[in-house]
Formats: sequence, structure tokens, C-alpha cells
Amino acid sequence: MSETKHSNEAAQTLDGWYSFHDFRAINWTAWKSLTSDEREAAINEFLGLLEKWNIAEQEERGSQALYSIVGQKADFMLMILRPTLEEINEIEMAFNKSKLAEYTIPTYSYVSVVELSNYLPGDENPYENPHVRARLYPSLPKANHVCFYPMDKRRQGNDNWYMLPMEERKSLMRSHGMIGRQYAGKVKQVITGSVGFDDYEWGVTLFADDVLQFKKLVYEMRFDEVSARYGEFGSFFVGNILSEEKVHQFLHV
Amino acid sequence: MSETKHSNEAAQTLDGWYSFHDFRAINWTAWKSLTSDEREAAINEFLGLLEKWNIAEQEERGSQALYSIVGQKADFMLMILRPTLEEINEIEMAFNKSKLAEYTIPTYSYVSVVELSNYLPGDENPYENPHVRARLYPSLPKANHVCFYPMDKRRQGNDNWYMLPMEERKSLMRSHGMIGRQYAGKVKQVITGSVGFDDYEWGVTLFADDVLQFKKLVYEMRFDEVSARYGEFGSFFVGNILSEEKVHQFLHV
Amino acid sequence: MSETKHSNEAAQTLDGWYSFHDFRAINWTAWKSLTSDEREAAINEFLGLLEKWNIAEQEERGSQALYSIVGQKADFMLMILRPTLEEINEIEMAFNKSKLAEYTIPTYSYVSVVELSNYLPGDENPYENPHVRARLYPSLPKANHVCFYPMDKRRQGNDNWYMLPMEERKSLMRSHGMIGRQYAGKVKQVITGSVGFDDYEWGVTLFADDVLQFKKLVYEMRFDEVSARYGEFGSFFVGNILSEEKVHQFLHV
Amino acid sequence: MSETKHSNEAAQTLDGWYSFHDFRAINWTAWKSLTSDEREAAINEFLGLLEKWNIAEQEERGSQALYSIVGQKADFMLMILRPTLEEINEIEMAFNKSKLAEYTIPTYSYVSVVELSNYLPGDENPYENPHVRARLYPSLPKANHVCFYPMDKRRQGNDNWYMLPMEERKSLMRSHGMIGRQYAGKVKQVITGSVGFDDYEWGVTLFADDVLQFKKLVYEMRFDEVSARYGEFGSFFVGNILSEEKVHQFLHV
Amino acid sequence: MSETKHSNEAAQTLDGWYSFHDFRAINWTAWKSLTSDEREAAINEFLGLLEKWNIAEQEERGSQALYSIVGQKADFMLMILRPTLEEINEIEMAFNKSKLAEYTIPTYSYVSVVELSNYLPGDENPYENPHVRARLYPSLPKANHVCFYPMDKRRQGNDNWYMLPMEERKSLMRSHGMIGRQYAGKVKQVITGSVGFDDYEWGVTLFADDVLQFKKLVYEMRFDEVSARYGEFGSFFVGNILSEEKVHQFLHV
Repeated sequence: MSETKHSNEAAQTLDGWYSFHDFRAINWTAWKSLTSDEREAAINEFLGLLEKWNIAEQEERGSQALYSIVGQKADFMLMILRPTLEEINEIEMAFNKSKLAEYTIPTYSYVSVVELSNYLPGDENPYENPHVRARLYPSLPKANHVCFYPMDKRRQGNDNWYMLPMEERKSLMRSHGMIGRQYAGKVKQVITGSVGFDDYEWGVTLFADDVLQFKKLVYEMRFDEVSARYGEFGSFFVGNILSEEKVHQFLHV
Repeated sequence: MSETKHSNEAAQTLDGWYSFHDFRAINWTAWKSLTSDEREAAINEFLGLLEKWNIAEQEERGSQALYSIVGQKADFMLMILRPTLEEINEIEMAFNKSKLAEYTIPTYSYVSVVELSNYLPGDENPYENPHVRARLYPSLPKANHVCFYPMDKRRQGNDNWYMLPMEERKSLMRSHGMIGRQYAGKVKQVITGSVGFDDYEWGVTLFADDVLQFKKLVYEMRFDEVSARYGEFGSFFVGNILSEEKVHQFLHV
Repeated sequence: MSETKHSNEAAQTLDGWYSFHDFRAINWTAWKSLTSDEREAAINEFLGLLEKWNIAEQEERGSQALYSIVGQKADFMLMILRPTLEEINEIEMAFNKSKLAEYTIPTYSYVSVVELSNYLPGDENPYENPHVRARLYPSLPKANHVCFYPMDKRRQGNDNWYMLPMEERKSLMRSHGMIGRQYAGKVKQVITGSVGFDDYEWGVTLFADDVLQFKKLVYEMRFDEVSARYGEFGSFFVGNILSEEKVHQFLHV
Repeated sequence: MSETKHSNEAAQTLDGWYSFHDFRAINWTAWKSLTSDEREAAINEFLGLLEKWNIAEQEERGSQALYSIVGQKADFMLMILRPTLEEINEIEMAFNKSKLAEYTIPTYSYVSVVELSNYLPGDENPYENPHVRARLYPSLPKANHVCFYPMDKRRQGNDNWYMLPMEERKSLMRSHGMIGRQYAGKVKQVITGSVGFDDYEWGVTLFADDVLQFKKLVYEMRFDEVSARYGEFGSFFVGNILSEEKVHQFLHV
Repeated sequence: MSETKHSNEAAQTLDGWYSFHDFRAINWTAWKSLTSDEREAAINEFLGLLEKWNIAEQEERGSQALYSIVGQKADFMLMILRPTLEEINEIEMAFNKSKLAEYTIPTYSYVSVVELSNYLPGDENPYENPHVRARLYPSLPKANHVCFYPMDKRRQGNDNWYMLPMEERKSLMRSHGMIGRQYAGKVKQVITGSVGFDDYEWGVTLFADDVLQFKKLVYEMRFDEVSARYGEFGSFFVGNILSEEKVHQFLHV
């Protein structure tokens, strides 16, 4: 904590649960080639995994979310939060070794960790603050819709976020955060950091009951200087909640 | 609606039906390996889906368009408009689970929502204006040709659309819109917004009886400052109408 | 024709036959798995298509060219010119449904239309000028070699072609055209426009008996300001003529 | 060694063992199709290769590390250090020809050589200095976690590392190195140079028992001018140690 | 030769043999599925092709080189030089139709022509100068190692090679060439031009007995203004010589 100053000061972050987004397309042709008993068994094995993972959620040792994804980029997304990267890997592997996984095609994934900026006074341990803990170790909401995209802060010519003084970055982020706060109650946002873990610097996962709020929020933010000058965005994924009761119908052929 | 000002003001949009463009190549080798009875059954199942979807169109609960696509990017495109993202997903899944889908290869797709800029006086509810409604919930035309491309507004160095003052953006868009208006009667344009939904910010779908009008329109617009300095374009797809009567011939091998 | 002025004036173009470049690799392993009778039948079916298309060429309703392509990008290219996009699509589909196509892998394609800049006085109808017609509806030469590449005019920072005044563009293109004219008799050039049709703005197809002239021409042009500052190039394809008599030998395994 | 000066002076490097990072995804469907005896045999063959390679490590003729990788980019990474590129190639081939390799899909690889900047006085032979030798011919640690990414120094407009005077580069690298030194004991860093060998200029392999230290280190460095203005990063891979005892469990289906 | 001046003068080049680099990965799973007799036959057929091509080399009608490639980009590279593009195509096809080719996967290729800058006085025919001929029609060395990469001269903003005056380009290239000359005896360099033939403007093939010399040479050059400001590099491939005697061992499974 007693760090020497460098050419520019890095923002301090708080880091919570590790996060894994797993996007999969379904190989429908192969799936249809199974007998309905085989499909039933594969679905039940998958529901068994979900059930097991839900126990961890009930015991506050993690959380997960399952959404269908619209468009050819994927058919569904499984998002997993866990205290260690080893547990993330185990869950990833458990799914990979399942019967259902044989009928899916990996299309995208993201490895990151729930991240908050540390705004608390220096003499308080933020990891003991219950409001902070609720955000570092969140229970993912059962909202109707999800939106995920990875992003970077730009480092290009005169638009170089990492060369800005800390004060300017703080001031820009404050105004940026105010847009997000206007959507409180409409959009829940989970920011995960992925510097050193995956190809972009952050993952943004949004949850909303009204899918149009994703567009309104992201579009409004794009006019804010933080996004307008300094945002570089990866692919956008959008989808509908896939509750466990609907998994059978979703996979019915 | 009582929103505070940010560093730059976002344009207000009106949002209509959700939109899905599904581009598919045909696996002709596999398709030919079927018996003609099997092919017939697959075609009839597909025509049955179209018929069902056409009922929604007749009841003004959506619209759709089917076009063959020229070149290796795809063999056909299905464009679907519906009131909710759930319905879009259902139709996507219904096709994915069909027999014909087994003989297609997904090559591109686009998820968006019909979008209009709001030019009406603030005291009028645009969603009750019949002219606005006709454009937010359009019946897609049966034009001979279609052209689709996704696009972004550029955010690069001095060419950063999102850093321009609202007044300048409005003035630029007005002159840009005048080019479009010169093609009234020749080209019908459906703009769909995809910020937060897909990888570009907008999808542009053009319909025309004379395919050369696409080239004339897009080329003329490219010299307009909005495109010249601020347009970033994705892939372009062009094709010919594939009426239901021609589906048999199209798939005949 | 009585068009209002915009922020910048678009060049007027003349548009001739629609154009399709179809690049294919051969799946030699699968091809070799056929009996020689099956291969013979597939070759004859393909030669039958060529023969049919040649009738259109003799009747001046189109033209085509067949070249082997060197390198892994493709094994051969079929270039087709026809009066309508519907005919282009029919020919594309006829090949796709043929036996030979089952043993090919699509690797690249390009959709465009033969394009000329209109330099004639305004009171003459260029489409009735026989010299113009010969270039808009060309019979493709039987040169030993072909070179194809797609290209854009750059729109980047200070190097933005579409923001240049018309007069400057004209002057730059004139000097650019003079390079091309030095190669008259050595290289025949067919320019096709693809704005609104495919991912680049133009396709350039060059024909020459001495393949080295492609390199000399393109390299010399690269030092000209139009290419040096404003050219963005896609992939380059180069190959040797594949006359109908050589098709058997080409496909012999 | 008596080299003439050029327009800019290249940094002198010391070069140690050649390095190969081999990332593989597992084809679980095919793997499950084997009998458990066949899988057992494939695993034992692989463990035999590891054992053989470990002898080289014990005899200080090289080193290697095996890690599972989280996310769809790969399932595991094998990193190999050896004195010659021929030995690297032999090990690569030995794995490629093994039974296990048949059930893996190559997803990424990196060819480089352990590299140090030469800070020693000119009259000392660095290759005889034991501290230097320990870093040029390192024994890879058995840390809980690994992080790998390739990188370039930027050459873009005003941000061109290779146009900076040697003194400025040295001074920037000194401040950059101080960040790394703060992580001494937490993160072990192996830098490998790949100019002329692979697509980026360097590979960075980090080892840590606490995976969060990767994020802290890379994020803190990103605010340093060397990364902020001059760093271009490829894909990031992160994972957990896969000790030989855990290989059976890892591959158990 | 009596060419008019353009906006900028193109460098004159001398052009020798056509060149083809063919990179292939081996499908080891399929290769292992053959009987050892079948593998033997495939290897012998391939050695027969090499033998035939070597006759051309002995008769100074071309040259070729075979190297194993390290890393997942390819397993081996075949480089071919011949007087005409037709001969290049024939050799490419002969390999494509061979049994061994069925067990390879094309991963990259490059089409170009041996190129020299013309530094001789204008009254001498360089194509009759024996020193020039030896470099235009070279016999490829049997060095232990090969390095290949394609490259462009940059055309970006203020770093636009093709907008520099001829004199400045000449002066920059002279200093650049001096670096290469320091490696005389250590690295042999074959430059092939590919403007109009393939996606980059040049291919660089380096041969050396000490593989580290590739890194030293390319790194030292990167600090020279020609590379620092004006070089754009494609993928780098590095490998070990694969003499005909070692082909059996290389393919032994």
C-alpha cells in the first residue's frame, strides 16, 4: 500500500468474485440426431449442474445467470461468479465434460473479476463495508434481459486515457457515473475487470426488465466524453432470461 | 424525461419493432444428399413458418422479408420485425429447429430495433402520431431488391461524431437526410438502432425495384460530410426478392 | 438529374453490366475420392455451363472469364458479366447446384457493376456512344493472366478523398489515369463499382499477357497521390488463363 | 561488436533458452468416444513425455510448465524452454505425434527466446555472470497461476518507440522496471523476445500464487508511459497450475 | 522506358524468378490412420517430386527450399522459384494433387517475384550483369534456419513512404541496407516483390545457420527509420532445415 509514485497514478480497485461468461451456440442438427431419451438425459444432467451451482448461490459462495442470446453469435450465455479462479475453472470443466456440451459450439467467453473503484476514506477497510461487499459478491438478478460487452479505455494519439492526470480521470468518471445512476431501478450494472485476464480491460454486464433501457443507457453514455473519446467496445450480446423451467422448452426439438 | 445535462446531449430516439436479420448460406452438398421427398417436406415446413409469420403481418403484429443474397456471403436473408425481443428469439429458434436450417450455415446476423429521430414538438406524444407509427411499425415492402449494411458514427481523433455539439449534428443530419429524400419513390429506407444490441450502432436496410439506386444513393451520401468524415461501414449485402412462389425453384436441385 | 448541391459533389458514374467474381478452392481429397467416370461427368456438366454462358457472350448479352489462381487463396476464379443482378444470381446458383461445386470451397467473391466516369458533354447520352458502350458492356479478353483486387478511397484524418473538392479529385484522377494509359496494349483494365453492393468501393480486374506488367502498373500507381494518400487495398489475386481445353487437365488427378 | 551507428541505436539484448508456448483446446466429444483404456494409454504416454522432459530440467538443459487455461481460448498451455530451436521443434513434434494430441485443437502458440537487457559494464561477459545465467536459463516456477500475453512497442504517429533516442528509452524502461520490482516475491516475470520469430515483439509470462497480482501489476503498468503510450497488447491467457498428479483428474470424463 | 514524370517517381526494379511460399500444417490424426505402407508411398511420391524439382535446380531453371516451421502456424514450408508463373502454378498443383497433400492443411502462402533495386548506370543492361543475374535467379542456400515475413511500406498520415521524394527514399534505403550488409556471411536475404500479386508489397526470406541472427537483424533494423516509421509487418515464420534425408523421420509416426 505504501507505493512510490510513477509517471501516472493508477486507480485503486476493489476486487470481488471471479467471473466467467460462457457463450455457446447449439448444434441443432447433432442435437436432433439424439433419441428423445438421450436428449432428456442430457437436459437433466445440465439441470443437475445448475441445481448444484444454485446451492453455492444460496450459501452465498457465488452466483450464476443463464440467458438465451439473440442472433447468430450464440444461443445461450452462462455467467458464473465464484471466489476463486480454481472454482471458475472447475465449473467450466464440469460443463465442458457434460453431455449437453457435446451439442454446443463455444463462440465467445470472458474471464474477469468483479471490480469497484475505491471511493471510501483511506482509514476504512472497504472489504468489511457491507454495501461494498454486496457489490463485490453480488447475487445476479433474475431480470428479463441481459446485455454483455467488453471494453477498453482508448490509448490513441491525443485520446489516451492512461496519460490523463488522475484528477481528470476522476472528474470524467464522476460525470459518467451520473448517467448510470439515472437508470437506477431500470438497469443493474455489474462491472468486471479483466486487465491481465482477458483481451479487453473490462466486461460490462447489464440486467434490465425492459430491454430498450440497454440501448438508451449505452447510447446516452456514448455522448459522454469518457465513452465518446476514450471508449473502445468489443462485441455486444443481448438476450432473454432462460429460467430453469424453460430449459426443456428451449431445447425441445 | 426530466434528465440532467451531460457533457454532450444525446439525440432522442423513437423506437419501434425489434428487428432481426438472419443471413444463411446453403450447404448444397448436404441438401442434394436428401431424397426429393425429404427436400419437399423441408420446404413445406419452411413455407408453413412463413405462412404463420404472414398472419402476424396481416394482423399488424410484425413484418418480414425474404431475399436471396448474391455472392458467397450468404444465399438468403430473412428479416423479421416483431414487438418484443422474446418474439424475435422465438422466430429465430423456430427456424433454427426446422429441417431446412440443418442445410444452412449461419453467416451473419443483426439484432436491432426500428429507430426514428424525434422531430415532433415536445408536447405531442409521437407514439400516437399515425405517420410516426407507420414508420416505427412498418410493413416491409415487396421491392425487387434489398441492400443491408451496419454502420457506426466515427470517434477518431478530430472526426468524433459524439463530441460534436447537438446543433452541429442536427445540421449535418438535415443535409444528409436531404439526399435520402431525393430518392423518395425509388429507395425505401428502414433504419434500425443497435447500440447495446449488436456490434455496430445502426443497421440500414434499403429496398428498391432498381438495384442501381442503392449504389447511387450510398455513393452520393459518401460525399456528404456525415458519411465522408463520420461514417464507418460494415459489410454490404445485396440481393433479389425471393417470393414464396419462388422458394421451390430456389431450392430445386 | 436536376439535383440540388450537397456539402460535396459526387462524381457522376456510368454503369454497365453487373459483375460477379467467384473464387473457389478445390477440395482435392474429396475430388480424388470420386470414380473417374463421376469426375468426367462433373467436368462435362461444368463445361456445359460454360458453353451455355458463351452463347450469351456471342450474343453480346454478357461475358465471362475463367482463370486458375496461384496460391492458397483460391484454385480458380470465374468472373461473370450480365445485364441484371437476377441473371448474375442465376448463374451463381447454377454453379452452386452443379456437381463440381460440391468439390469446391468458396474462398472469396465480389459483387459489383462495370463503372465509368462520365467525361462526355452533358448534352450527349453516353449510353448511346459506341465507345462508351464497348467499355460498359465489354467482352472480357483472353489474356494469359488476370489480377483482381478490391479497393476503397481513404477517409482518414487529413487523407479524406470524399472531403476533397470535385476539382481536386478530377485533377488527381487525371494524373492517375495517365499512368494507366502508359500501359495501353499491355494491360487491359476493367473497373467495377461496388458501393452499396460489396465491402469495398471498387473492384479492379486487370488482364495482361505478361504478368509482370501487373506489378509494374500497380507499383507505379502506388507512388501517385491518388493511391499513395487515398488508396486502401484489399486482397490481391493473380492467376493464369484456364481455357476450356485445359479444364480437363487442370482437374485431372 | 564494432558496429557503426545507424539513425537510431538498438538496445543490446542477452538471449537465453528458446521458448515455445503451446495452447490447446480439448475435443471433449472425441475424447469421450475413447474407451477408458485408450484414454488411460493416451494419458500415460503424455505423462511419459513430461517425465522425459523433466529429466532435461533436472539436468539444467531446459525447463517446462503445464497450466490449465480458463475460458474458451484454450484448455491447457505447455511452455517449453530449451537451448536450441531444433530441440523446441522436436518436443513440439513429439507432442503432435502423441495420442493425446489427436484429441486437442491447436488454438495459439508463441515462438521466442528468453531475453534480458544488458546492463552490465562492457568489459564483463554477461553470459558468465551467474545472476544473468539464472535468468537466461531459468527453471520455471511451480506457481499456482500463469498469465501470458504477447506485446509490441508502438510505432504510430507521435507515439513511435523506435524513433525515441536511446537515453529516453532507457529512462522510460527504468521507471517501468520499478513497477515490476514492487511485485518482487509476488509475481515472477519471464520476458521472451520474438522479433523475427513470431508476430509480436515480446512474450510476457507471469507466474504468481495469487492470481489477482497479475491484474494489479498489468493495470498499474498500463498507467506508466511505456505501456500507456507505447504498449500494444495481444491476447491475454490466464490459468491454474496443472501438476502431473492432477492430469488424470483434469482429463477424467 | 521513356516514361513521363508523375506526382512522384517510382523506384525502378529488376525482376527475376517468380516465387511461391507454401505453408502447410500436417493433419497428424489422419496421417496416423494410414497404414505404414500407405505413408511410405505418400512420402516416396513427395520425395519423387522434390527429386524432379531438384533437376530444374541443377539445370539452373529454378530453385527450392524445404523447412520445418516451429509453432502452430505451419509444420513445414516449401519455397519455390521458377522463371514463369505458369511453372509456379504447375508445381503448386502437382503438390496439391499428391497423396501427402491430402494430409496437410494449407495455412498460408505467398506469391511474389525476386526483386532488386536497379543501382547500375543507365547504359548497362542489368539483366546481362552476372552479379545481378546471380541475385535475380538465386540458388537458395541450405542454411540451418529460415525466416519469412511479408511487409508493406506504410502510408499513414505523416508516415507515408510513397509521398516521400525519391532522393529521401534512396537515402533512407541506403542506411537501411547498411544494416543488412553487417550481417553478410551470417544472414542471406532474398527479397521478393508482390505488389499486384499478393496482400503485402514484399516478402522477406532470410537464411542463417545461427537462428539468433534473424532476431538481431530484424530488431536492429526496427530502430532504423525505414522500419521504425515506414515498416508494416505481417506474420513471422521461423524454422529448421528439412533435408530430404530427414523427411522420413519428420513424417514418422
